[in-house]
Amino acid sequence: MKLKLLYTYLAFTGLAATAFAQENVDQAAVDKIREEGLNHSKVMETAFYLTDVAGPRLANSPGLKKAQAWAVNQLKTWGMVNSKLEPWGKFGKGWEVQKNYAAITVPYYHAIIAIPKAWTPSTNGAIKSEVVLIKADTVTDLNKYKGKLAGKIVIFDTQAKLASGIKADLSRYTDEDLDKMAAATMAPAGPRRAFDANSPQFAARRKMMAMRATISKFLLDEKVSLILSQGRGNYGTTFTTNGASYADTAKAVAPELETSGEDYLRILRLVKAGQRVEMEADIKTQFITDDLQGYNVVAEIPGTDKKLKQQVIMIGGHLDSWHGATGATDNAAGSAVMMEAMRILKAINFKPKRTIRIALWSSEEQGLFGSRGYVAAHFGDPKTMELKPEQKNLDAYYNLDNGTGKIRGIYLQGDSAAGPIFKAWLAPFKDLGATTVTISNTGGTDHQSFDAVGLPGFQFIQDGMDYNTRTHHSNQDTYDRLSEDDLKQAATIIASFVYNTSERKDMIPRKALPTPPPAAPAR
Amino acid sequence: MKLKLLYTYLAFTGLAATAFAQENVDQAAVDKIREEGLNHSKVMETAFYLTDVAGPRLANSPGLKKAQAWAVNQLKTWGMVNSKLEPWGKFGKGWEVQKNYAAITVPYYHAIIAIPKAWTPSTNGAIKSEVVLIKADTVTDLNKYKGKLAGKIVIFDTQAKLASGIKADLSRYTDEDLDKMAAATMAPAGPRRAFDANSPQFAARRKMMAMRATISKFLLDEKVSLILSQGRGNYGTTFTTNGASYADTAKAVAPELETSGEDYLRILRLVKAGQRVEMEADIKTQFITDDLQGYNVVAEIPGTDKKLKQQVIMIGGHLDSWHGATGATDNAAGSAVMMEAMRILKAINFKPKRTIRIALWSSEEQGLFGSRGYVAAHFGDPKTMELKPEQKNLDAYYNLDNGTGKIRGIYLQGDSAAGPIFKAWLAPFKDLGATTVTISNTGGTDHQSFDAVGLPGFQFIQDGMDYNTRTHHSNQDTYDRLSEDDLKQAATIIASFVYNTSERKDMIPRKALPTPPPAAPAR
Repeated sequence: MKLKLLYTYLAFTGLAATAFAQENVDQAAVDKIREEGLNHSKVMETAFYLTDVAGPRLANSPGLKKAQAWAVNQLKTWGMVNSKLEPWGKFGKGWEVQKNYAAITVPYYHAIIAIPKAWTPSTNGAIKSEVVLIKADTVTDLNKYKGKLAGKIVIFDTQAKLASGIKADLSRYTDEDLDKMAAATMAPAGPRRAFDANSPQFAARRKMMAMRATISKFLLDEKVSLILSQGRGNYGTTFTTNGASYADTAKAVAPELETSGEDYLRILRLVKAGQRVEMEADIKTQFITDDLQGYNVVAEIPGTDKKLKQQVIMIGGHLDSWHGATGATDNAAGSAVMMEAMRILKAINFKPKRTIRIALWSSEEQGLFGSRGYVAAHFGDPKTMELKPEQKNLDAYYNLDNGTGKIRGIYLQGDSAAGPIFKAWLAPFKDLGATTVTISNTGGTDHQSFDAVGLPGFQFIQDGMDYNTRTHHSNQDTYDRLSEDDLKQAATIIASFVYNTSERKDMIPRKALPTPPPAAPAR
Repeated sequence: MKLKLLYTYLAFTGLAATAFAQENVDQAAVDKIREEGLNHSKVMETAFYLTDVAGPRLANSPGLKKAQAWAVNQLKTWGMVNSKLEPWGKFGKGWEVQKNYAAITVPYYHAIIAIPKAWTPSTNGAIKSEVVLIKADTVTDLNKYKGKLAGKIVIFDTQAKLASGIKADLSRYTDEDLDKMAAATMAPAGPRRAFDANSPQFAARRKMMAMRATISKFLLDEKVSLILSQGRGNYGTTFTTNGASYADTAKAVAPELETSGEDYLRILRLVKAGQRVEMEADIKTQFITDDLQGYNVVAEIPGTDKKLKQQVIMIGGHLDSWHGATGATDNAAGSAVMMEAMRILKAINFKPKRTIRIALWSSEEQGLFGSRGYVAAHFGDPKTMELKPEQKNLDAYYNLDNGTGKIRGIYLQGDSAAGPIFKAWLAPFKDLGATTVTISNTGGTDHQSFDAVGLPGFQFIQDGMDYNTRTHHSNQDTYDRLSEDDLKQAATIIASFVYNTSERKDMIPRKALPTPPPAAPAR
């Protein structure tokens, strides 16, 4: 027997409450979901396979392919249907590190903490060289190095000083933070701004990029053996970036090693003081070019209501990561939580009215490519706002991609009509700390691909934990960083949101369709 | 012209003030010292040579010898006399790392953060092996591995979970902390307790050490290629220890690699889940046995007062470090500050009444050996309390060895009569945050060697900074951790203390001589 509780959302003024539909919350279903999600969780086991077992999951890397294959199979094992890899378009080359060794050998031996920049090539086997400091603000400055750099390891001057740990690495939202988010208002969205390629900011950036490209080509032509660059981070934590394009048509670059702040600055101080520094290194990276396509993992729990089953609720997170660690918080956490939400719904034997579909995106880190490709194939083109028939049947998309922190609420992304609904759905999770509905946007991840074509796409508010300080794109984004209780909470709440979305009489109300941006002015 | 200011210390009660001598502080000298120490400092340059240039400075290592030679020469250059290495007795073997590479190769490639345990041997060249989990609570448990471990890399189960960054890494004393220290009282010292080899604690410890020794011998006999052990620390910070004895008669052990928590636990989780893990490693360590003696650096500014010049004020810190980084806060900081204090006093052309002597100790990390050896040779034997003639001429010893934090005051180490004197000497440095005199003891470093033979030996109170959280014995104890303003402040205050000690009419009052401990009971 289902016990129905009634939550009423008094929005903005008490009197305005009647302007919103009253939301039913099926408390018995919530109880079942909580029991399964909090007391019989498999989220840490799932996370273990996605991180420790699969390894780093850079776009199109063997690690990502392993995690994708495992996820497709695991979702099948749990009873999902249509579990498969779905191509979303051309991405480019896969890449992985197969050897990573570098050390100072003069004035004394010291193995450094460093990670090859993504998509950079191997050194020419094991190399050994003096470290040469390059000082070049202009192209002319480069000339003095001409003919002197063959086989050398090079370093650039930086002004960077390392931060010290004045603040705690770990943080959670306070009640005040959440109150502020809940009280936020949003100006009505105007037409999106066209990108102004003539702005001074863009001109400065273009100049810097051109200088970088010139230096890069110079160093390649001069046959340097290795470039050292300073990785962001401190105390042994090093953040990674990419050092070259993944395009199959990308220009060649020299090998480049992102070096921990401590090791980089030590070498730099020595070289600047006129102390001779020699290093040895052996970097082997492998490009994978047999399949340039990108793929998302998708799987479904089919809808059972004759009329509603063609309507689809989607949940997702990106499965790809950076390469310095195992992308535990970015974003094995979100992927494992979403897989767990699906598992919970199957485990309680839920027969949804609407179809529930999970998608684990790829190439999110390079520009939300997996979700954008999926949206373009299924729902429409955000540039022209030409929409496909499936667009009207996508009920809502829920995303998770802000680390291991528990859910504290949800960003409405400007969809004010969804506010009272989500407020009601969060009410049974007040004891778990999830209460806040904010009209605000949040960016940087895959719900934006849906939002861009007028679909209700939402990202949850999550406690920050050590995401921005230690894990996001770093060599320390490992399984150790995952907070079991937080992930269980998130999976439980999302399963409940999906349940409610599926059973709701109407689909989630939508914002007005975005206006396509005006064409960029001619340059 | 010297402007004499009078600071009066109102101790315990205002009326009791007359019970204490009034301390003169030569404000003009303080001003000169401040000007030189705060505005013309060379402390960071000195620290650079002791850390970046010399490298890790493990006892009797080439890095320590390089730092010692540089310090002897630098002190000479600044005008000190009798600058030399002084042997303090037999230590044992030197040791250094000459190659340090280890990586997971199956299920995917990942280079790990790890440091050979001090005084452990090389691997047999480049090795490659499966990782085998050893579960052994008793000697019998080991039998099941007999004949199965040759050439294998082994790992042990741990319960350790990594801490997350709930507290800030960096801290300074608050006013409340300092008030509490200032208010501390101390029970009169009884006779020192004899070490009871029959206590249950010692029995348990003996059992554990025996089990460890048995396992160690078993693994050596079985010819394992490498032992992995979990280093304390998180987020890439790894603390180092020693894995074997430095004695020239030490038993052989297998190579052992202290592995960052993240990397260790990743391997452990995989192996425990039945996932095959393979690794490759290439560790080369070098033992240095040509000179087993230990040495301290000593240098002097000679006294100029006919009667007082045979009296000596000593300042010091240990120059040796652990091997995972460059021992910047432990204790290049203290060494550089003490060298800088000497430089300041020479730079202001100070002609002290008493002789001022700096000592940079070695083998502090293994048991204060350098300072103990020095004290035994010059001042007396703490076991028998047989004292040498020099003992009565040692005025005071000031030590610095708690990292890069500025001086907040001084530990009296129970020498209450010194309290009013130091309180007066600190008064001109109130604006620099140094105010607190505490009767309390602090341990763990070289002033204890002096205290043990009845000499006034003091350690300053220093802000903690990230010493206990990140740097103390870790792979992150680098020059980056040094706080320039803090080190300048410390050198300035110490130079002033030395000045005052030298010019004071009387020597620093002493505590009663310690009572030698009773002989340990026969076992």
